[in-house]
Amino acid sequence: MVDHQAQRARIADALMRVAADRGLEAVSVRHVAAEAGVSTGMVQHYFRTKDAMMAFALDMVSRNAEARIAADAPSLGANPTPRALVRTLLVQILPLDETRTREAKVTLAFLAYAAVRPEAGARLHEIATGMRAFLAAQIRAAAAVADPETAATALFALVDGLGMHMLTGQCSPEAALATLDAHLDSVLGRP
Amino acid sequence: MVDHQAQRARIADALMRVAADRGLEAVSVRHVAAEAGVSTGMVQHYFRTKDAMMAFALDMVSRNAEARIAADAPSLGANPTPRALVRTLLVQILPLDETRTREAKVTLAFLAYAAVRPEAGARLHEIATGMRAFLAAQIRAAAAVADPETAATALFALVDGLGMHMLTGQCSPEAALATLDAHLDSVLGRP
Repeated sequence: MVDHQAQRARIADALMRVAADRGLEAVSVRHVAAEAGVSTGMVQHYFRTKDAMMAFALDMVSRNAEARIAADAPSLGANPTPRALVRTLLVQILPLDETRTREAKVTLAFLAYAAVRPEAGARLHEIATGMRAFLAAQIRAAAAVADPETAATALFALVDGLGMHMLTGQCSPEAALATLDAHLDSVLGRP
Repeated sequence: MVDHQAQRARIADALMRVAADRGLEAVSVRHVAAEAGVSTGMVQHYFRTKDAMMAFALDMVSRNAEARIAADAPSLGANPTPRALVRTLLVQILPLDETRTREAKVTLAFLAYAAVRPEAGARLHEIATGMRAFLAAQIRAAAAVADPETAATALFALVDGLGMHMLTGQCSPEAALATLDAHLDSVLGRP
């Protein structure tokens, strides 16, 4: 009996490695099959198109980050401040260790892919809407700025921009964290 | 007599179209040659590798933006405020019209490319250093924040993040401009 879940996970894992190590252009049925050690037919059984593979990789990254955020939540205590909640979420997106760097590379590959294929962007729009709603709610709760929606849009763009600058060697992890903390001070108050 | 400058410009233009319309993965000697209507040997004569093509495209984008900024400068009058100078520069990076959208797609393709090829990032690091130094100098001149270097890192990341969110349908042009203006108010003072 074939364990479909395990097979799918194995292929998805290979796909993540290909995207993170060699970039978007290497994500093809052929390369992913070679990396997973399975046939191209097997990969096509699980992912019919490159679009489907890319979307699955993005969802995996998103689920992994959510799992880490959930794991961190108890350490915040019973009544975390909006700032603590927001910071816990955002540091799980920044490429601050090997796992997050790999995931950020997959995300950046997906973004570059979606920029020239608008139809691939639907899932991104959904993720962005959820992210901004959460950030705006926390910023509203902290009551430090006049326009929480605009502040949420800025905070989300800032973190994605910092992550991209880290991945491409334009910004050190230390500078990125210091920049994030200074910005959180201004929109959510000092810790 | 072959006009080398014209030939090179023709190939570079084809490269920009390929990168902006079909993305990073389509940037190959073969595709660029087809788009330019020349032989693959001709493309290879001007660009020996994909790295060389990508770096050239990034430089073209950067020079085009600089030319637009220089063209806008006189409209700022004799003594522009730091805020007016910074805004003039940053709106030329955001994908707010067809030309800038095309250029922003090329830049995003390059960033995704550089994220998995650190050696391709040297030129990016140079551009980022120049950009942050300019922004920090203007922020220092406006004297509205305590740490101009961190504010410059944030502003640069914010604009690149907003641009990426616009390209991928996560943020409207109107929301991006409103977010940029609110941020400029806070680090450079109101206009």
